[in-house]
Amino acid sequence: MGYQEFTIEGRNAVIEAFRSGKTIDKLYVLDGCQDGPIATIKREAKKGDTLIKFVTKERLDQMSETGKHQGVIAVAAAYEYSEVSDILALAKEKGEPPFIFLLDNIEDPHNLGAIIRTANLAGAHGVIIPKNRAVGLTATVARTSAGALNYTPVAKVTNMAKTIEELKKEGLWFVCADMGGTTMYDLNLKGPIGLVIGNEGEGVGRLVKEKCDMIASIPMKGDIDSLNASVAAGILAYEIVRQRLQ
Amino acid sequence: MGYQEFTIEGRNAVIEAFRSGKTIDKLYVLDGCQDGPIATIKREAKKGDTLIKFVTKERLDQMSETGKHQGVIAVAAAYEYSEVSDILALAKEKGEPPFIFLLDNIEDPHNLGAIIRTANLAGAHGVIIPKNRAVGLTATVARTSAGALNYTPVAKVTNMAKTIEELKKEGLWFVCADMGGTTMYDLNLKGPIGLVIGNEGEGVGRLVKEKCDMIASIPMKGDIDSLNASVAAGILAYEIVRQRLQ
Repeated sequence: MGYQEFTIEGRNAVIEAFRSGKTIDKLYVLDGCQDGPIATIKREAKKGDTLIKFVTKERLDQMSETGKHQGVIAVAAAYEYSEVSDILALAKEKGEPPFIFLLDNIEDPHNLGAIIRTANLAGAHGVIIPKNRAVGLTATVARTSAGALNYTPVAKVTNMAKTIEELKKEGLWFVCADMGGTTMYDLNLKGPIGLVIGNEGEGVGRLVKEKCDMIASIPMKGDIDSLNASVAAGILAYEIVRQRLQ
Repeated sequence: MGYQEFTIEGRNAVIEAFRSGKTIDKLYVLDGCQDGPIATIKREAKKGDTLIKFVTKERLDQMSETGKHQGVIAVAAAYEYSEVSDILALAKEKGEPPFIFLLDNIEDPHNLGAIIRTANLAGAHGVIIPKNRAVGLTATVARTSAGALNYTPVAKVTNMAKTIEELKKEGLWFVCADMGGTTMYDLNLKGPIGLVIGNEGEGVGRLVKEKCDMIASIPMKGDIDSLNASVAAGILAYEIVRQRLQ
C-alpha cells in the first residue's frame, strides 16, 4: 500500500479532476473569488468529502508549483489499491485461513476508516469495497484508520456479488450482518471467512445478501433500531476472532 | 430523560453563556460583523463543539424572539441528566443485575454518541460521565446516539473513582479496558458490572484504574496500536452480553 498527495492547479484542471471522479481532499480557493468557474468548483467540492479553504493570493502563489493557479489549487490523494488476489496471498503467506471484510456501500468516511482500523487489529487480511456509490479512500478515511491503511490491503471491485462467487471457489464462507438472522454466538464462524457489512441506512443489498451463506445478528435489547456501522463491524469481527482463538 | 433547545440572544448574554460553561450547539452571527464582542464570541465558539453560521440581518430578525439579537443568536441544548441512583433503580425495575458504562473522559462527541447508542442496545442501564474535561451531551452527541439519549439515562459525576467506590457497596464489579490486561474471553464478566472506558488518547486514568477489579484486553493481531474508542466499547460490551446470555 502506498499513499501520496499531489496538487492540481488551475480552473479547468480542477473541474476536470472533479468530473473524472478523482478524490479531492482539500481545495484552496482565492478568498472573495466568486465567478462562474469557481462557483462550479465549489459546488463540485460540496458534493464530496472535500474541505474548502479560502486563502490569500500570496498563499496560493507560495503553494503553486506551476505559477498558474488561477485562484484555485486542489490537493488530491492517490492510494494504491490492492487486488483481491493480494489479500488471498497475504493470508497464504501468514499461513492463516483467509479473513476478509466486504463493505457493501459504507458511505461515511469515518466509518470506513474505523472499519479498516478494526480489520487490521482483528487480524483480517484485507478489505473489499465497491467501485461505485460508496466512499473511497479519502484523507479522512486515512486519518480515521489511524495508520491501518498503510498495512491492511484495500481492494475495489465492480461487482460485489460476483466477487463473493469467485471467493467461494477459493473455499471462503460468507456471513453478512443483518437483523432477523441467527444470533452470532450460535453460528460457526471458524475457517476461511468473508464478513459482509452493509450500508449505514439500508443494510446489505439484496443481491449481495443472497450470495451469503449465513446471516448473523447481534442480539439487541434496547429501544432503538441499530448500532453504528463501525461498532457493529467491530462486534461481529471479534466474535470471529473469539471463535478462531478457541 | 428530556431534551429541549433554547436560544440566547444578544452579545453579553451569549458571552456569559459561554463563560458559564453552557453547551452552545449552534451560533448564528450577522455576516460581515467583525467587532470586538463578536470576535470574542467566535473565539469561544471555536474552543468548543459549536457550529457557526453566518446569516443575514433578515434571517436573524426572523429567528429572534426578543427583537434584540445585536447580531448574534446562540442555540443551546438542555438535557436533563439522571442520577446514579436512577440507573440502579432502572436495573432493579427490570429485575436485572446492573450493567453500567463509565466513560473516563471521552472527548469526541461522535464517540460519546456512538457509545450511548451501544449502551442502549447492549441492554445497559445507564452511562456515567465525568463533570469536567470530557464532552457533555451536545447536539452532536444526541444525533450520533440515534435516539438512544432519550432512553438510556446519563449521569454526570464529579469524581469517577469515588462513584466506583460507592457502586462497589451496591455489589458491582468493575472491569476497565486497557492493554496488558487479561484477554476479555478469559474473564468472568457476569453479574452486576461496571464497564470503564478510557479517554481516546490516554486510556483509563490511573486513579480510576486502581479502583477496577479487572483489566480486560481485546486481543489485537494487527500492526497499529488501538481500536477506535467506540468500537472498543462495543466489543467489550458485547463480550459482557455474550456471557450474560449463557
